[in-house]
Amino acid sequence: MSELRWHPFHQDWVITATHRQDRTFFPPDDYCPLCPTKDGGFPTEAPRENYDIAVFENKFPSLSTPPAEPAVESGELLAVRQSNGVCEVISYTSEHTATIADLPVSQIKKLTRVWRDRYIELKSRPEVEYVFIFENKGREIGVTLTHPHGQIYGYPYIPKVVEIRHEAERAHQNSHGRTLAADWLNDEIEDGRRIVFEHKNWIAVVPFFARYPYEVHLGPKADTPDLESMGDEMLNGLAQALKDLTVKYDKLFGFSMPYIMSIFQFPAEHTRLIIEFTPPYRTKDKLKYLAGSEASCGAFISDTLPEETAAQLRAL
Amino acid sequence: MSELRWHPFHQDWVITATHRQDRTFFPPDDYCPLCPTKDGGFPTEAPRENYDIAVFENKFPSLSTPPAEPAVESGELLAVRQSNGVCEVISYTSEHTATIADLPVSQIKKLTRVWRDRYIELKSRPEVEYVFIFENKGREIGVTLTHPHGQIYGYPYIPKVVEIRHEAERAHQNSHGRTLAADWLNDEIEDGRRIVFEHKNWIAVVPFFARYPYEVHLGPKADTPDLESMGDEMLNGLAQALKDLTVKYDKLFGFSMPYIMSIFQFPAEHTRLIIEFTPPYRTKDKLKYLAGSEASCGAFISDTLPEETAAQLRAL
Repeated sequence: MSELRWHPFHQDWVITATHRQDRTFFPPDDYCPLCPTKDGGFPTEAPRENYDIAVFENKFPSLSTPPAEPAVESGELLAVRQSNGVCEVISYTSEHTATIADLPVSQIKKLTRVWRDRYIELKSRPEVEYVFIFENKGREIGVTLTHPHGQIYGYPYIPKVVEIRHEAERAHQNSHGRTLAADWLNDEIEDGRRIVFEHKNWIAVVPFFARYPYEVHLGPKADTPDLESMGDEMLNGLAQALKDLTVKYDKLFGFSMPYIMSIFQFPAEHTRLIIEFTPPYRTKDKLKYLAGSEASCGAFISDTLPEETAAQLRAL
Repeated sequence: MSELRWHPFHQDWVITATHRQDRTFFPPDDYCPLCPTKDGGFPTEAPRENYDIAVFENKFPSLSTPPAEPAVESGELLAVRQSNGVCEVISYTSEHTATIADLPVSQIKKLTRVWRDRYIELKSRPEVEYVFIFENKGREIGVTLTHPHGQIYGYPYIPKVVEIRHEAERAHQNSHGRTLAADWLNDEIEDGRRIVFEHKNWIAVVPFFARYPYEVHLGPKADTPDLESMGDEMLNGLAQALKDLTVKYDKLFGFSMPYIMSIFQFPAEHTRLIIEFTPPYRTKDKLKYLAGSEASCGAFISDTLPEETAAQLRAL
């Protein structure tokens, strides 16, 4: 059973998906569902000897088409919608222990093509209003499968945070005649203190308004609103940027850095694709928790200066 | 150094407070800054033998008046404001290991009076736009001091989440002639399945739109927008409700339940004070993590049905 329930105080939907309570939780390596099926072994999601990159439907989806049956009836105020949509899993490689930082750039290039293909396919589905490609990496983030993978959610609505973002971008375009991302990234380049690296087509920056100590945004240097609008040269540049950033992250504290990676994109002229990385560490051995101010009021308190954490990452 | 930085994509402020990186982190019990100062011992925030309830200014404040010096200059797009405001700590008792569930109701009654006093005082300060009383409880929430305490933030702006809430409440009042909370709580009472308990003046409910498995909202049965509008009878009822709820939480899994407690209130006719409890556990040994969908898109996925978790809590 699954449905969307309306949160009237947040003006947003909450997804209930009770079958997920029993989802696979840190299986032993021999029972990894994302590894290729071993001869005579546990049948995985990939019934073959090997693969390059694999995309599956999530076995414990929050959203699916046709949708699951709602658990409750809809009222006027306590409103319910069907939870139709898509949840996919992208396995980055058949190697059980690799991370983006470990992969050759040639493999990351393939990943960017898979992202583009799936994005184009999923956004064309009538039930999907917003396609969100992301990666949860590391136990600290709550990952329950260690095999390197990302996810794609096709939401049947525009989440409130995304709506706020689009409204801000639209208003900026209307008042300035340029995208908000263009003006922001130009300010970052001019200032220079928060740049982690600048490539031909991509820039990595700890944004002026970072909410997490080692938050880094990857932005293209052109007004490309989504993956579909990016040619192969842009995607190859993205692959190199992803490699360089994740290698820096792993060097920072000497361990494989957990993070949430979020690709914000929307096919509209006033938007520009931005990829946000938010690692949860504030020092080598201390996590940044989202407690009362952050979790309840959205008021993030940053214990570090973006100018200083960017300098640290730049120097690595 | 500290300041507010504008997040143009979220249309919200981010607070930087770099001195907090060095804040007290799990001191040994003998060095608890919230305990009364022991004869000849470590000088704490309470230089006396004993106390009932104590309120201090936070030693590592995110917001303060006069404000700290901003670390960077303000630009047109990358805007900076001074981080004036207030951060206070409320120690619930001089007992180092008590929790609200352990305290006698008479002590919790005193706590509600302290909340009301501090709320009235802080909202009158010219620099304060929103007073937020909350408690972070438990290591899982990121608490670094175990002594039972809550906090009050006086923000110099209305956080975006709160603004959305107020707009929704104002729109509902305009269209229905009743508060959103009144209509929602009446729906909950009529349905009944999500009620945890109902007292004379207060109701405890796992809301229809819960984002966390054991989320409980405490709501008054009258349109009281804030603590100032509550008389002693309401506050006494609140104390009993807080006791009953926290005792149930501790019984649920057999350990002292961590949670964030958030008091949403605002002195306006269209609002009603609501106290939200969000414990991070989804089962006895599994935490609910805020990963990509939740942390980046605000799209919460609930693994449980509010109707079922409410029945569990009700039965305890």
